[in-house]
Formats: sequence, C-alpha cells, structure tokens
Amino acid sequence: MHKLSRSIEILERTPAVLRSLLLGLPDFWVGGDYGPGTWSALQVVGHLIVGERDDWIPRLRRILEHGESVPFDPFPHDATAAAPGTPLAELLDEFERLRAANLRELHAINLSHADLERTGTHPAFGRVTASQLLSTWVVHDLHHLRQISLAMAWQYRDAVGPWCQYLNTLNR
Amino acid sequence: MHKLSRSIEILERTPAVLRSLLLGLPDFWVGGDYGPGTWSALQVVGHLIVGERDDWIPRLRRILEHGESVPFDPFPHDATAAAPGTPLAELLDEFERLRAANLRELHAINLSHADLERTGTHPAFGRVTASQLLSTWVVHDLHHLRQISLAMAWQYRDAVGPWCQYLNTLNR
Repeated sequence: MHKLSRSIEILERTPAVLRSLLLGLPDFWVGGDYGPGTWSALQVVGHLIVGERDDWIPRLRRILEHGESVPFDPFPHDATAAAPGTPLAELLDEFERLRAANLRELHAINLSHADLERTGTHPAFGRVTASQLLSTWVVHDLHHLRQISLAMAWQYRDAVGPWCQYLNTLNR
Repeated sequence: MHKLSRSIEILERTPAVLRSLLLGLPDFWVGGDYGPGTWSALQVVGHLIVGERDDWIPRLRRILEHGESVPFDPFPHDATAAAPGTPLAELLDEFERLRAANLRELHAINLSHADLERTGTHPAFGRVTASQLLSTWVVHDLHHLRQISLAMAWQYRDAVGPWCQYLNTLNR
C-alpha cells in the first residue's frame, strides 16, 4: 500500500537539496554536461521545472477525472525550461515555487487509499495506478539528483588523474 | 592548473547537502541498500567519515612530508564508521565536524602552485600529484551523493510499476 507521507517527505525536500548543492556555484560546476547530448546541472533543474508544470499533477488529475479513458499527454524526456543564459538562482526559485504549489494541491486533493489504486492510461505502456505515478515522481527527483552529481563530477574527469579507474562515476 | 578554490567550494557544502537530503528521514529511506553487498545512505555517510579521518588530509600530509618515498597507507574501499544502530543525526554531525576541521587544515597548509604539483606514491597505481588527490576528494563526495540517491530510489523499485523501464537508476 502506498504511504503518501513517505513520498511527500522526499518531494518536499528536493528544492532545498538542490539549493544547498548548487546555489552560488560558478558556471564551471553547473554549466558543464557529461558528454554530447547530455545535460548540465542547470539543464536538469530546467527539466524538473517542466515536470512540475506538465507531468505529475496534471497526470494525477487526468486519472481522477477520466480514469483509463483518456491517456496522459506524452511528456518529452528531453524537455528543459533552462533557456541559455537563465540564471540558476531563478531556476531554483521557480522549481521551489512550483513544487510547493503542487504539494499544496496534492494535499487539497486528499487522496483516499481507493484513489491511490485508481488507474489511468500511459501513452506508451498502458495501465498505471495513481500510486505508481506518485512513486515515480519521487524516483524521478532522486534519479535527476544522481544526474546532477554526475555532470558535476565529470568536470574533474581529467583532474583526478589515475584515480579515474577507481571512480565508476567517471567511467561511462 | 588546479584551482584550489574550485575544489573547496564543493567540499565545504557537502555536509549541508547531506543534511538537507537525509536529516529527519525514517529508516525506510536511509537504512535500505540497493542489493546484496551494497550500502544504505547511512552506511555511505559512515564511509565519508572514515575518508575524513584516514584518507584525504593524511595522504596530503604524506606527500608534503615524504614525497614519493613513503607510499600512502592503503584505504579500504569498504570501510564505514556507521556501526549498526548509530543515529543518522550523529553521523551527519560527525562528518560535518571532521570536514570543517580538514578544510581548516587545508587552509592552514596554504598550498602553493608548486605544492599542488608535488608527487606521492599510491599503493596501487604509483605516482600521483597533490592536485589529483584533492580533485579525487571532490569527485568522491559527488560519487557517494550519487550512491545515496540510488539507495534511496531503490526503496521504490517495485512501487513505480511499469515506469521502472524509463528510470535507468532502477536498472542495474
């Protein structure tokens, strides 16, 4: 059974985690990616913003309003709100604001145990529950925290010299 | 050339990052590993404590005192100071205290550009520079932040249902 409080205790702290990890760092750390076609820390924060706007709560509403009859709108994996030159502090503020609003809405929806088992239709793999959607929101945060750590570590890939072989983060 | 300030700006924030990510979470999130032989978030913090005690600054001192003539003491990759039952808050406090003391010592050593190019002997792969050692300290923090995020995400591996296939963090 999904314990909603367990998900919320992660979701509500992510903005502060990103702030403590990133705010005030120079472009060297937050602007570098980890190879062609990959994201910088800044772009990952922009991606989390798009998720808050278009993915998690809109999909939850879709389940509660339409069940399986209306599939979710597709959510592009490569969407990021980080236009070139956007200051990181603005992105962190925007993410924090949207996350807080979404958690207020989640609280207001006041999901019952039965609601958590309600089902919707994912455009790619079909039937999913509200519980699975909310769990994925949590793992998505942690997944992208990993990605940010990787992008930052990558900037020192050459600097570590022979230690590279011991740090599997740097061996992709 | 190694920019020492660039390394310090990561090293000095790691205790606060771990605090914002972990403090106050229940054992469900901080006590679970991601498979046999792997660590929980709590054990990773214990490992970072051992590094502060035995690895980074002691090895820097070895380089400055003995150059390549006395190899570093081996540092066990699987060492953790997290005895079963140690409260996470105590581990976070201990890590913060040790890291602050080590950064004070690093500041006091007042490394010159020439010092950063001084060399020591790693027991496994031989000649390394002080600069490479300090860079590895930084990447080691970020690597273990990734590992903590993985251990936490893993606790929801089943909860996400079919989304598992989209979250490469959960596919190991």
